[in-house]
Amino acid sequence: MKHVRFRDPAGAVRRGEYHDDEEAVSFAGETYDLESVDVLAPCEPSKIVCVGRNYVEHADEMDNDVPDRPLLFLKPPNTVASHGSDVTLPAGKDRLDFEAELGVVVGEQAKHLDAEDAMDAVAGYTCVNDVSNRDDQREETNWVRGKAFDGAAPIGPVVATPDEVPDDAHVRSFLNGDRKQDGSLDQMVFSVPELLAEITTYMTLEPGDVVATGTPAGVGRLSDGDEVRVEVEGVGALEHTVTIPDA
Amino acid sequence: MKHVRFRDPAGAVRRGEYHDDEEAVSFAGETYDLESVDVLAPCEPSKIVCVGRNYVEHADEMDNDVPDRPLLFLKPPNTVASHGSDVTLPAGKDRLDFEAELGVVVGEQAKHLDAEDAMDAVAGYTCVNDVSNRDDQREETNWVRGKAFDGAAPIGPVVATPDEVPDDAHVRSFLNGDRKQDGSLDQMVFSVPELLAEITTYMTLEPGDVVATGTPAGVGRLSDGDEVRVEVEGVGALEHTVTIPDA
Repeated sequence: MKHVRFRDPAGAVRRGEYHDDEEAVSFAGETYDLESVDVLAPCEPSKIVCVGRNYVEHADEMDNDVPDRPLLFLKPPNTVASHGSDVTLPAGKDRLDFEAELGVVVGEQAKHLDAEDAMDAVAGYTCVNDVSNRDDQREETNWVRGKAFDGAAPIGPVVATPDEVPDDAHVRSFLNGDRKQDGSLDQMVFSVPELLAEITTYMTLEPGDVVATGTPAGVGRLSDGDEVRVEVEGVGALEHTVTIPDA
Repeated sequence: MKHVRFRDPAGAVRRGEYHDDEEAVSFAGETYDLESVDVLAPCEPSKIVCVGRNYVEHADEMDNDVPDRPLLFLKPPNTVASHGSDVTLPAGKDRLDFEAELGVVVGEQAKHLDAEDAMDAVAGYTCVNDVSNRDDQREETNWVRGKAFDGAAPIGPVVATPDEVPDDAHVRSFLNGDRKQDGSLDQMVFSVPELLAEITTYMTLEPGDVVATGTPAGVGRLSDGDEVRVEVEGVGALEHTVTIPDA
């Protein structure tokens, strides 16, 4: 099953079901054409906990070692952007990158999860673009200007229950229609349950929080007006455009 | 004026006024003895944006240089703890430190602030203990285990309007009654308006968000059962205890 948050034709925010085959959404017995509603981010995270260097080939392309334990960083709620939107990125930067990722959406408040039953706390999966400002990321002790700017986390369009997503699902990005990244979930250094166990050793996860699980090799530069598509097999495709203002 | 969030004797959450002289709080014409209510964190931040190395002597004691621009890091909502609480910190760590700080509470949604009028977006000031887990902070690329664990940000007890707080207000910490830190706001490397301008170049601040402005010299180790007091002159005193479980 796939859930979607949307604003219905009357402007009310609904959490309904997404129907791939009909290009439609439904809530409380009403069905709407996808084009007649505004698709919102599929959840409202109090925090997005992100994982760096979780695919060996991406760590290599960035000249980094694979860490002994998950490299964690944070994106606060101001970073969230939705499917179908135009995302304005920081002005005057030379290198703003797309990074396609599997997003894990938390379903219940969770702390001190064991890897064995961590999946019980998962509502489902979504697509994330971990947009990155390399100009500042390279200079910073913590990646705040580099990773936590407004619009740095387009997510969506749906939350697919885990049964929809194969263990070796492909994670792909496309820039203006050209495929740039193509990895598989079974290439992750740390699995979803391992990540949830490690994160909740320190932090309580809340319903709607997102864990962005790292990006495969092939990241690249965004330019003003680009169209980005992030696909997670079994979830669907997140699409958005970017505006990069002059400094 | 000082604002306080509290749970009244009926359990309702109120944002009322704090009366120092009477040790009382009021809301909608009702006045309550401070002891008859539960004091909550004075705001509900969607994020706490923290500043590192913003006092020269503290940077020195940590063997760090003072940065050219503010060193930023993040504490998500799971870090918030309230005045009068007992805060359980991560288990099995050797070095958990207190850090007394001025917290700036945001009053309105703000982006691209100029330093000249940044104070228009400020609701007031509070006290923050930027509790730090040095064991992990020293090992991490981004300080998530080090700074973003549950309970890492006791704040409160009130939000004092800026007119209550002198420009050279002292920021002090006390551990079990002994004074450990004593700095002054006029020693900050980057001023409050400069910090707000820099942060909002990248991020939208929301009402209730907090900017933690860095700590003066004298930080030190917490032990299980310690009583911590953070004072900001003109605001008041945040007090809490800590529990540090064995590993």
